Amino acid sequence: MGPTPDFMRRIAAAAAAETLPRFRNGGLVDNKLAAGFDPVTEADKGAEKAIRTLIREEFPEHGIIGEEFGAENAGHSHVWVIDPIDGTRAFISGLPLWGTLVGLTVEGKAVAGLMSQPFIGELYFADGGGAFYEGPGGNRRLTTRPTTALGDATLCTTTPALFNGLRRALYDRVEQAVKLPRYGTDCYAYAMVAAGHVDLVVECDLQPYDIVGLIPIIEKAGGVITRWDGAAAEKGGDIVAAATPELHSQAMELLNAS
Amino acid sequence: MGPTPDFMRRIAAAAAAETLPRFRNGGLVDNKLAAGFDPVTEADKGAEKAIRTLIREEFPEHGIIGEEFGAENAGHSHVWVIDPIDGTRAFISGLPLWGTLVGLTVEGKAVAGLMSQPFIGELYFADGGGAFYEGPGGNRRLTTRPTTALGDATLCTTTPALFNGLRRALYDRVEQAVKLPRYGTDCYAYAMVAAGHVDLVVECDLQPYDIVGLIPIIEKAGGVITRWDGAAAEKGGDIVAAATPELHSQAMELLNAS
Repeated sequence: MGPTPDFMRRIAAAAAAETLPRFRNGGLVDNKLAAGFDPVTEADKGAEKAIRTLIREEFPEHGIIGEEFGAENAGHSHVWVIDPIDGTRAFISGLPLWGTLVGLTVEGKAVAGLMSQPFIGELYFADGGGAFYEGPGGNRRLTTRPTTALGDATLCTTTPALFNGLRRALYDRVEQAVKLPRYGTDCYAYAMVAAGHVDLVVECDLQPYDIVGLIPIIEKAGGVITRWDGAAAEKGGDIVAAATPELHSQAMELLNAS
Repeated sequence: MGPTPDFMRRIAAAAAAETLPRFRNGGLVDNKLAAGFDPVTEADKGAEKAIRTLIREEFPEHGIIGEEFGAENAGHSHVWVIDPIDGTRAFISGLPLWGTLVGLTVEGKAVAGLMSQPFIGELYFADGGGAFYEGPGGNRRLTTRPTTALGDATLCTTTPALFNGLRRALYDRVEQAVKLPRYGTDCYAYAMVAAGHVDLVVECDLQPYDIVGLIPIIEKAGGVITRWDGAAAEKGGDIVAAATPELHSQAMELLNAS
């Protein structure tokens, strides 16, 4: 018993009602900051509350883990994982590449998820039936593109500054091997892999809520996503997502070089 | 006699009719590449042709300079400058932060301009009456925010990799002085400065068509935009755009340090 596409649309809409009024609201930001308020935190909390309410109504027995309000009933076989605003720095900079992430895990494995970008009006989601896009340009099934060589790949990461020490050297090896690197993408990068516009995402130090909602979207679109050490991506950490198994394997080789 | 807001909307719509059908059109890209076509070049050329047609109809005596088709009648006092797709790497990566840029110069000074992002449905433009936004969230006048200290500023640039040698060291001084750097923004960064969401853009090696359309948007919103050497930004080169004169002055000091 998983979520229907309609339930995922309802989650996206409920979150948007909390996030959108606080996005690009410069004057309000200044006033609120002066009064001790933080609009992105307000948006984060409001969206997570709204999402939790919908999940409790529909699946009262399920567990929920969220960035803002922690875990409830997390020992259940079915646990929802919520990041109400992934990309808070993009959010506060007016850049519409942040997203609301919600995933459902069953016995620890992510089986359904969504990424919503409400300013543009985009919804990327996956369930047992596949991975799908709804938004500008027309609704369609998501499919990664068949890139198999790093030298042909477009790579996304939020900023190379996130990688420190050895990990920066390992990341740089991947960046130097690809055709085109792009920065500043947060969760949006994973949606672009699933949609077949880019080929690879390499990031580090992610929390489970940063990635669980995205795992089914990548996998149902034909991609591969794991940690750099090959473990399941559900626990977060250092993550690599690729359009194809071949590309994933080549990136893993560079990221695990000594 | 300058362009009306309606004329700028018509330019944006005519360009969008050429760019949007070729954005995120993965299957088509592959087929066209196999047949020797390049969709972003097709979109670039199609949009510039459409824009030139509108300008010739409305202002037949004016000059036109464009990225794709060069100069015509460029000795006239009034010259239009066109970049049909600024941010082609974002465009081919599915990331909706590219834009169509069109500016009007009179005796070499940019007096009106527009930046259009048609996938999101955003239009930023400026004329004698001010700078304006039309799109999601509601139409409004553009105003930079009153940030006066680098330590409070958000800085955007497309990628630090664009700065080489001494310029990289100078750019890094600015990046280290700000509160938050963001990458991957192309022309979109200038729109965010004008709209009051970020405070500073530092870039290098721009062509006139990369910047002329954006200059009036920054200036009419209250910002300051010049070359690093203090010269007018209309000729392109190394550019700094700031929300306030104070911020511009502090960035210039770091960018011109020896």
